[in-house]
Amino acid sequence: MAEEVVLLDIHASMFGMRVRIALAEKGVKYVYKEESIGNKSPLLLKNNPIHKQTLVLIHNGKPICESLNIVEYIDEFWKDKAPLLPSHPYHRAQARFWADFIDKKVQEAGSELWASKVDQQEKARKELKERLKQLEEVLGDKPYFGGDSFGFLNVALIPFHQCFYAYETVGRFKLDCPKLIAWAKRCLQRESVSTSLASEKDIYEFILDYRKTHGLD
Amino acid sequence: MAEEVVLLDIHASMFGMRVRIALAEKGVKYVYKEESIGNKSPLLLKNNPIHKQTLVLIHNGKPICESLNIVEYIDEFWKDKAPLLPSHPYHRAQARFWADFIDKKVQEAGSELWASKVDQQEKARKELKERLKQLEEVLGDKPYFGGDSFGFLNVALIPFHQCFYAYETVGRFKLDCPKLIAWAKRCLQRESVSTSLASEKDIYEFILDYRKTHGLD
Repeated sequence: MAEEVVLLDIHASMFGMRVRIALAEKGVKYVYKEESIGNKSPLLLKNNPIHKQTLVLIHNGKPICESLNIVEYIDEFWKDKAPLLPSHPYHRAQARFWADFIDKKVQEAGSELWASKVDQQEKARKELKERLKQLEEVLGDKPYFGGDSFGFLNVALIPFHQCFYAYETVGRFKLDCPKLIAWAKRCLQRESVSTSLASEKDIYEFILDYRKTHGLD
Repeated sequence: MAEEVVLLDIHASMFGMRVRIALAEKGVKYVYKEESIGNKSPLLLKNNPIHKQTLVLIHNGKPICESLNIVEYIDEFWKDKAPLLPSHPYHRAQARFWADFIDKKVQEAGSELWASKVDQQEKARKELKERLKQLEEVLGDKPYFGGDSFGFLNVALIPFHQCFYAYETVGRFKLDCPKLIAWAKRCLQRESVSTSLASEKDIYEFILDYRKTHGLD
């Protein structure tokens, strides 16, 4: 049976970028449908009735939601090419732990930063710096998170690199994470990554638009 | 090599119960160490330096944190006995999606209920009822979540059944989820479950103690 793969997504979404990279790593062809946060399509609402969030992979008519869950699904269904999760259970648990850390802690601090007025950003600035520092310690001197090859945790984190410019500009501060910057440069040399990511400018404009709409500047 | 398995846990923890059930399903022997929320051991802080939460599995000296992550690790490391996650990628993705729903939505509504004053509980009562109703729809007429056998999603949810008495008593309302009650009775017939769960009374007393300390009654 030919695989029918549809992705409901938003171009500037950190979570959508993860799924696009995973599909590209596996060489899966798909139909891309751009959604709108303010005007969700009937197809989206039908396929993500619980969270109604704008990211769904529909594979042969069946919906899968939540970005890390979708990436694991892609890794398991198309298992013969470009494995994303490591093979040893302990390394898999470590990759899942830190991907969850990104969702709970990095994403939280980042959103708090760009969705707050400048005089209320100090806590988020500090937390974001600390959390990126923790990730640098996990990376250590390895070329990629987890070792020599690009996999799950790299897929989970690289979209956030595209926010660094927006974080710094909107937050009026400098991040200090040279190891992550060098790691991101390596990731961006991969076609699966460079063709899947929204640009720093796109993310910045998305955030500026949000801040304007909500009277934050 | 003999496996050295240590569990740092709290008896009344919903998250700890999941791990105890998974270890029992696999027949893994382990050393249990009771932690205290207010007085975390040096061993815990050393092994969970990021979140500092009172649940860590230490396997041959290596720590694994976060309950669902630990359950997946147990399922993958001791893979030859009592598989917990289903084998098909789509069913695995569904099980992970709903386990995440429990952590994000059921746990959230439940905690809001028991950590609020009675006159501020109405929203949490309504949400908890709705979310349990959604889980009943997922269960349908099957004996267990996911089908005929006890697996991952059942492990993730069954500890919350032990809170129903506390939810109802502290929230002064009645839950209406007969299918979940019948499902829980089936689960409780399993030795792995009955020997791993804290009692409804233990949970209720744990919550009463919290409410007393925080002046909520």
